[in-house]
Amino acid sequence: MGEFDLLARLRERLPPPGGRVRLGIGDDAAVTVPGGATATSVDAFVDGVHFRRNRQSLEAVGRKGLSVALSDLAAMGASPGEAYVTLGVPPDLDEDGCLEVLAGVAAIAAATGTVLAGGDVTRSPVLALDFAVVGHAAAPEDLVTRGGATPGDRLVLTGELGGAAAGLLLLDRPELGRSLPDGVAGGLTRRLLDPAPRLAAGAALAAAGARAMIDLSDGLGADAGHVAAASGARLVVDLSSVPLAEGVAAVAAATGAGALELASGGGEDYELLAAVPPQRVGAAIEAVTAAGTALVEIGEVAAGEGVELRSPDGGLIEPRGFDQLR
Amino acid sequence: MGEFDLLARLRERLPPPGGRVRLGIGDDAAVTVPGGATATSVDAFVDGVHFRRNRQSLEAVGRKGLSVALSDLAAMGASPGEAYVTLGVPPDLDEDGCLEVLAGVAAIAAATGTVLAGGDVTRSPVLALDFAVVGHAAAPEDLVTRGGATPGDRLVLTGELGGAAAGLLLLDRPELGRSLPDGVAGGLTRRLLDPAPRLAAGAALAAAGARAMIDLSDGLGADAGHVAAASGARLVVDLSSVPLAEGVAAVAAATGAGALELASGGGEDYELLAAVPPQRVGAAIEAVTAAGTALVEIGEVAAGEGVELRSPDGGLIEPRGFDQLR
Repeated sequence: MGEFDLLARLRERLPPPGGRVRLGIGDDAAVTVPGGATATSVDAFVDGVHFRRNRQSLEAVGRKGLSVALSDLAAMGASPGEAYVTLGVPPDLDEDGCLEVLAGVAAIAAATGTVLAGGDVTRSPVLALDFAVVGHAAAPEDLVTRGGATPGDRLVLTGELGGAAAGLLLLDRPELGRSLPDGVAGGLTRRLLDPAPRLAAGAALAAAGARAMIDLSDGLGADAGHVAAASGARLVVDLSSVPLAEGVAAVAAATGAGALELASGGGEDYELLAAVPPQRVGAAIEAVTAAGTALVEIGEVAAGEGVELRSPDGGLIEPRGFDQLR
Repeated sequence: MGEFDLLARLRERLPPPGGRVRLGIGDDAAVTVPGGATATSVDAFVDGVHFRRNRQSLEAVGRKGLSVALSDLAAMGASPGEAYVTLGVPPDLDEDGCLEVLAGVAAIAAATGTVLAGGDVTRSPVLALDFAVVGHAAAPEDLVTRGGATPGDRLVLTGELGGAAAGLLLLDRPELGRSLPDGVAGGLTRRLLDPAPRLAAGAALAAAGARAMIDLSDGLGADAGHVAAASGARLVVDLSSVPLAEGVAAVAAATGAGALELASGGGEDYELLAAVPPQRVGAAIEAVTAAGTALVEIGEVAAGEGVELRSPDGGLIEPRGFDQLR
């Protein structure tokens, strides 16, 4: 089946464009009327690099691909607007398989209020999705970069960490899950395979006055390092304050990994880390909680550079990226 | 080398963002202030599908990738704004190779006034580029879709056709070029490997009142079919009016292909086909010529559906896509 047929079949399954999107899939380009400021991010999602095709359904691949792309908009505090998807189709993926991937993309689009406004289809040696996502804000000053963390700011974190890293360990060694309470192992693998972009929390943090923000794709240590570098400041994290997802400690103990290493070095939790002026922390916690997500203080911004991860025993943990854990 | 290093090195080589782009490469997302309407298109450019890596320099791969993506904006009559590139890096491409590809992308960005505002880097089995390009217009009505062709409109074409298809034949059989005048074979292969997006011509056609427009990536017959389908009209093309690139007739004769088949079935010429009301044809020709590109009338829009390609002897040629020629 050709590109045109596949995109036409996708279009049939989508709600008609409206509002900001004047023309969706099917022409040389989509036409939108943005108004205000836009945040635009591109994100690749490639079999063997970002996921493994045999680990989840094709629909789950599409779901996670778009969720991860939208997480970058959450990290800007942008309101999700449009998504454009390029589907690289390997020789062994048939039309139904393509539609299953795209159904996952469409489901996350619908769940987040994102319009699938355009796409491209190409042959590819492996299943590969590329996303361009566009978010909106009233003005550029309303969007939160990585570069505004200021000494004295408090560091706040949404949700819980370590779940995706523990989920990855469980996929490799499912027997570890048998000693966990009912549903916990499934919850951890879902954290890895079906993360939710923290869009509402990101918007709430932006509105509450966050000065810098990032989503945790590479791991707390590595991503805090990106904020430190962009802001020209030092980020000091108290790891004893970091909430762990349920079951992370047990999985860590069973595998000999440290729970705090999983939480700080494991990536793909897609929680948000933000720097907030001290006098705005209360409002930020209230707003993010109202948006349905927990927010806790985990440290502070200091003068200097780099990242300091303080363990509960007073020692320091080396900030590491997720790739080193795999 | 990691994604961050590569994007940082790319950023060093780019002019600083300005104007509409408030924040470029290096954060979770780029920040722009569009104003008016935007045209957004995504385009994959994959080794073994859209190009073959051994056929041209890595810089030429980057050049053509972005040019082809921008051609979709030309077809909307949009002014080029921002480009976002995802680079899929195969195991045998080193850092210098990546930078050579990106240098080609950056050269076309600079030549067209496009800001490279974001990117992603991933491992990939083959060299693969994915582009998202954003063009601008004062209002959505200023952008030209495929869907407005109206019976009575005249069909106009920029430039010359058949060059890219003849260039492909020459790459496979370089000995055919020896009988051509000096420089002609090189010109034909350049048409294939380094096409120029018709941005100025597209903008001129939009301003002159074009009612439908498309860029010829799949071939005149196939792309006219897309306009016919989107417009609910019949496109009648007089092939004797279609200008052929220099050398196309000779290459066609030497290979046994028909010159008109190359011009109508060969794709990748990236010229523009537009439907223009009869009373605007003169103004369109004047405006496009002033923009540095020839524009000729090659047919008309009629009631009905589909495409009719009339050959000079009065017969009809079957509209075919480029894939069938390869």
